[in-house]
Amino acid sequence: MPLSSAEAFAPATVANLGVGFDILGLAVDGAGDTIRAELTATPGVVIREIVGDHGKLPRDPLKNTAGIAAAAVLKAVNASSGMALTIHKGLPLASGLGSSAASAVAGAVVANALLGEPLTRDQLLEHALEGEAAVTGYHADNIAPCLYGGITLSYGVTSGEIVRLPVPEGLHLALITPHIEVLTAKARAVLPANVPLKTMVAQTAGVARLIHAIYQGDVAQMAAAMETDTVVEPARSHLIPHIAEARRLAKEAGALALVISGAGPTLCAVCDHADAALLTAQAVTALYEDAGIGADRRVGTVLASGAYVI
Amino acid sequence: MPLSSAEAFAPATVANLGVGFDILGLAVDGAGDTIRAELTATPGVVIREIVGDHGKLPRDPLKNTAGIAAAAVLKAVNASSGMALTIHKGLPLASGLGSSAASAVAGAVVANALLGEPLTRDQLLEHALEGEAAVTGYHADNIAPCLYGGITLSYGVTSGEIVRLPVPEGLHLALITPHIEVLTAKARAVLPANVPLKTMVAQTAGVARLIHAIYQGDVAQMAAAMETDTVVEPARSHLIPHIAEARRLAKEAGALALVISGAGPTLCAVCDHADAALLTAQAVTALYEDAGIGADRRVGTVLASGAYVI
Repeated sequence: MPLSSAEAFAPATVANLGVGFDILGLAVDGAGDTIRAELTATPGVVIREIVGDHGKLPRDPLKNTAGIAAAAVLKAVNASSGMALTIHKGLPLASGLGSSAASAVAGAVVANALLGEPLTRDQLLEHALEGEAAVTGYHADNIAPCLYGGITLSYGVTSGEIVRLPVPEGLHLALITPHIEVLTAKARAVLPANVPLKTMVAQTAGVARLIHAIYQGDVAQMAAAMETDTVVEPARSHLIPHIAEARRLAKEAGALALVISGAGPTLCAVCDHADAALLTAQAVTALYEDAGIGADRRVGTVLASGAYVI
Repeated sequence: MPLSSAEAFAPATVANLGVGFDILGLAVDGAGDTIRAELTATPGVVIREIVGDHGKLPRDPLKNTAGIAAAAVLKAVNASSGMALTIHKGLPLASGLGSSAASAVAGAVVANALLGEPLTRDQLLEHALEGEAAVTGYHADNIAPCLYGGITLSYGVTSGEIVRLPVPEGLHLALITPHIEVLTAKARAVLPANVPLKTMVAQTAGVARLIHAIYQGDVAQMAAAMETDTVVEPARSHLIPHIAEARRLAKEAGALALVISGAGPTLCAVCDHADAALLTAQAVTALYEDAGIGADRRVGTVLASGAYVI
């Protein structure tokens, strides 16, 4: 039965996990986007308000990730009514925290909630992907952990090709977002078109080690495996100033690894206790403040549930 | 305390497991090489006899994988005595069943046994690798499962970079070795020097899915993941006649996947019960017999223990 209004939250996500470029991701407890939907008699989606985007996101529902995802849900169930969305952006845009994925997933989940949950989570995947596709292309590496929660492996873009991995106990993250802009398109353009076969073997070895470590619940080994990427991060490092120094400071503060979150500029430090995450976040933020760049920081664990109705 | 004689068995191994080129391998229950060592007063290694190699292996202990591995063990412990080896080859040469690795591992293990087990299994790794290096280069993908048993992931060539993965229950293998020669050097030469980045991502996804399936104990998913290789097997398929037909027949007989074992020509079919493995081995062998090529067949499960002293 349709409701008159509903609200959904979708979390920030860290894609890639270093060596797992385009296939691995995790959901972060804490930060995320919240969308409120109200039932309207007019079919289709309108965007009533967007808060927290500094006016940067399109208000046209056909060009907005959340609007596209919500409209896809309405269409999938042949809804006769429509909805008006109020979007609260809790995540900075183009930051490497899966901001567009969070809006797309929240849009799909809130639309489904408003209509009385006619669709399963697996069915919502496709509609959330449609929203994401409008911004960054048809990728599941942020959408999957945002929708399903935990740590996800996506070897395709259908629900049958996405699996949830166990979450190692004691895994704590520090996320530092320097105040610079890294466009996803540019971050993709700097990647090599080809890699040597030996490099491919090393990358598969690193990913295999990472999945093994995740199943073993071994945070230290997980962190070491994440840092074995020799393809993507080396190509992108120059887009993020002071990254080598940030890694050094993170490790001094107790972090076990530091990688680029998604396409950056957010840096994700892996820790095995909360204090180390806090100290790491402080130390790396201070580095960017001292450099006149500035940075936001977040600390958190992995969100097991994925996006949820509030 | 040194013994007057000792005997060791080292199993056949399947390297690569399809998509896990150069990093994954497993030990097979049943077939393998057996080496007997007798203590001699003269330092160093002599090879007394090799049975089952049709006279093809070098009798010079400095050029023989087992001789090199055994001599490396003698040297590592500064042994004042020597040993004479009698090598029973249970595995065909250059067949993709890890024949040289089995001899190297058996040589290291029997030498250690003869000397009263002064070295740990981790220490034997290095010496077995020295033996293998004489034939196929410094690779651990056959040595690791042969020495440690089970399914192994090698992300380097030291004991700290090799991990054992769980063995899914119900995993049965059919190994069919057509009577053709595929030299490892040639099988390596046909590989592409570079791969597109997209292909690397797909290969990492396939490996991640395979490790996940192994941990889930899901033989069907494991088999599906093994067959996702788009780099190595496509480049090598032309070296193994009738491979597409062999795969078709294997699946008709109940196999879930068929991949090239190591550098070939042995084909490894993955099954979830013993009957399917037997039927698959018969069907694929018949294919090669009908084609006038002929083939040997073996069926078995994964050997958990690795090489052992008899």
